[in-house]
Amino acid sequence: MLLLKKDLFIGGVVLKEFEFIEKIKPSYYRNSSVIKGIGDDAAVVKPPNGYELVIASDTMVENVHFSFEYMQLRDIGFRVLAANLSDLAAMGATPLYYAVNIAVPSTYSDEQLIDLYLGMDELAKKYKVDLIGGDTVSANELVITISVFGKVLPNKKRLRSYAITNDIVFVTGNLGEAAYGYDLLKSDVLLENHFTDRHKRPTPRIDFTELTDSISRMSLNDVSDGLASELNEIAEASNAVIEINWDDLPVHSKMASIDTEQLKKYVLSSGEDFELVGTCSPKEWDLIKEKTSNKLQVTPIGKVTEESNTPEVFLTIKNSRTILHKSGYSHG
Amino acid sequence: MLLLKKDLFIGGVVLKEFEFIEKIKPSYYRNSSVIKGIGDDAAVVKPPNGYELVIASDTMVENVHFSFEYMQLRDIGFRVLAANLSDLAAMGATPLYYAVNIAVPSTYSDEQLIDLYLGMDELAKKYKVDLIGGDTVSANELVITISVFGKVLPNKKRLRSYAITNDIVFVTGNLGEAAYGYDLLKSDVLLENHFTDRHKRPTPRIDFTELTDSISRMSLNDVSDGLASELNEIAEASNAVIEINWDDLPVHSKMASIDTEQLKKYVLSSGEDFELVGTCSPKEWDLIKEKTSNKLQVTPIGKVTEESNTPEVFLTIKNSRTILHKSGYSHG
Repeated sequence: MLLLKKDLFIGGVVLKEFEFIEKIKPSYYRNSSVIKGIGDDAAVVKPPNGYELVIASDTMVENVHFSFEYMQLRDIGFRVLAANLSDLAAMGATPLYYAVNIAVPSTYSDEQLIDLYLGMDELAKKYKVDLIGGDTVSANELVITISVFGKVLPNKKRLRSYAITNDIVFVTGNLGEAAYGYDLLKSDVLLENHFTDRHKRPTPRIDFTELTDSISRMSLNDVSDGLASELNEIAEASNAVIEINWDDLPVHSKMASIDTEQLKKYVLSSGEDFELVGTCSPKEWDLIKEKTSNKLQVTPIGKVTEESNTPEVFLTIKNSRTILHKSGYSHG
Repeated sequence: MLLLKKDLFIGGVVLKEFEFIEKIKPSYYRNSSVIKGIGDDAAVVKPPNGYELVIASDTMVENVHFSFEYMQLRDIGFRVLAANLSDLAAMGATPLYYAVNIAVPSTYSDEQLIDLYLGMDELAKKYKVDLIGGDTVSANELVITISVFGKVLPNKKRLRSYAITNDIVFVTGNLGEAAYGYDLLKSDVLLENHFTDRHKRPTPRIDFTELTDSISRMSLNDVSDGLASELNEIAEASNAVIEINWDDLPVHSKMASIDTEQLKKYVLSSGEDFELVGTCSPKEWDLIKEKTSNKLQVTPIGKVTEESNTPEVFLTIKNSRTILHKSGYSHG
């Protein structure tokens, strides 16, 4: 019974939390706003003046959100941080810091845990994000919680409640690729291609947020729970009716041959693509196209047709208009 | 396999994350600095101008940090948040917000989960702290991660590196009560007294932080891993030598009859009392006594005797001076 103990038991040897922390502790901080990082009861930061602080956290569990059958620890670290950074991107925020809380079985070696952190650090380096704290405790299965912190100017945050009538609805990248990649991995765990990579190492669309910081108003969500769910969240938060067209939804050419019903599941209901879906005025849509041109695929997929106390999302497919429910299920 | 799913499975019924969130979502925020709380991809806050933001997080696991044999879900919620708030107190920070990430088995009912949140809310109400976000996912054992956020004026933060020669070493409350209470519970799970309550529902010493905000410099730690460990952390971070006296350590009168070796374990090595231990100048010690008088027990237990590149903690017990190691083990 480890009750009242904070030591981490690894490979039968008691590894003091302190020693482990020394190994993962950054030697310097990328952001000067980190006043006190790892090494006290808490971290101390001073986000830049004039900005608001954006805070998100996500927990992922072994065999629920990831599986060792298809992924290495390094991929898992990468993916959990990517999912969190995606939440910051969906708020229009620039990432600053992250904290990692891990519950881990006693069978894990020190090196395995460090692999997990190395996966995170690949992304952290790219986006200049600092590890400022966390906790590592003993458990029977691997549970990883990451908290991320970003900054946003007050008038540049992208809430899902910001959609208004006549807005263009857009989405970054292609839809359904991560879920397709996951299915491919299930049939061949060793397969490595664009789609399997999209499942293992999703790209948080921080670049979209940066490229479009001159846009005055945008509603925005990341596609973590599937397009249908995210669009319904925007519709509900904005009290709006959204209409999208099946033929406009961006799908990778190599997925075109997939059976239509299966493709609908991938494109409408499968999450964890971590693309962004949002709305903006028709005028600013031109600016988004200009700013992202040759850098990031952004596709118009529909319109906000009206503001309404009965928010709804409609999908038109082959001239038939049906209600698109959160689950991705649609009926006329 | 729940892979790629974020729904929470409860009692065989799929409870959408959204519905659960609606149940625990606060109807208003206690802090006006919460700009966007629960209900988007992330929370948005604007900590008051001139302050630094203090961030801490702690994970607790079923059968590692708490046991259902001795505690109700409501106690567990209370205790996990208390442990986190204690970290803020140990930095001299005033609590503002918290986020909760829970991994939970499918056998839990909605009501049980809400009980957990109610335990947290008891403390949150008292200290005017706002629940601003989090996540609930499915797992095989209960793992709770709480992140807390507080504010502190730049010159009033209490780092463990702030101890200097001639400082008085002090501790709040009594030592070893929570561990003694836990042992009492092991022999009688139904027992309810001061000590069992100290194990189940520890008090974060936010009041000490508030009462002593006029003190210019203090080093401070919370006693989460035992007095010996915390004093060594202060000594190491400050490059200092600390001397404490066994006879000065505050112990509840009802614990006086405990066998000396066992009492030493409780007082020196047992954590989770969540009292504060720190150091300040002799001049400011008088001010601390004055400010806390009749409100909170604060006891001088020793001195910082010198600054040194070989930091050390010494314990004098019955005229015999020994090195006090992190573990609480001492030898001459």
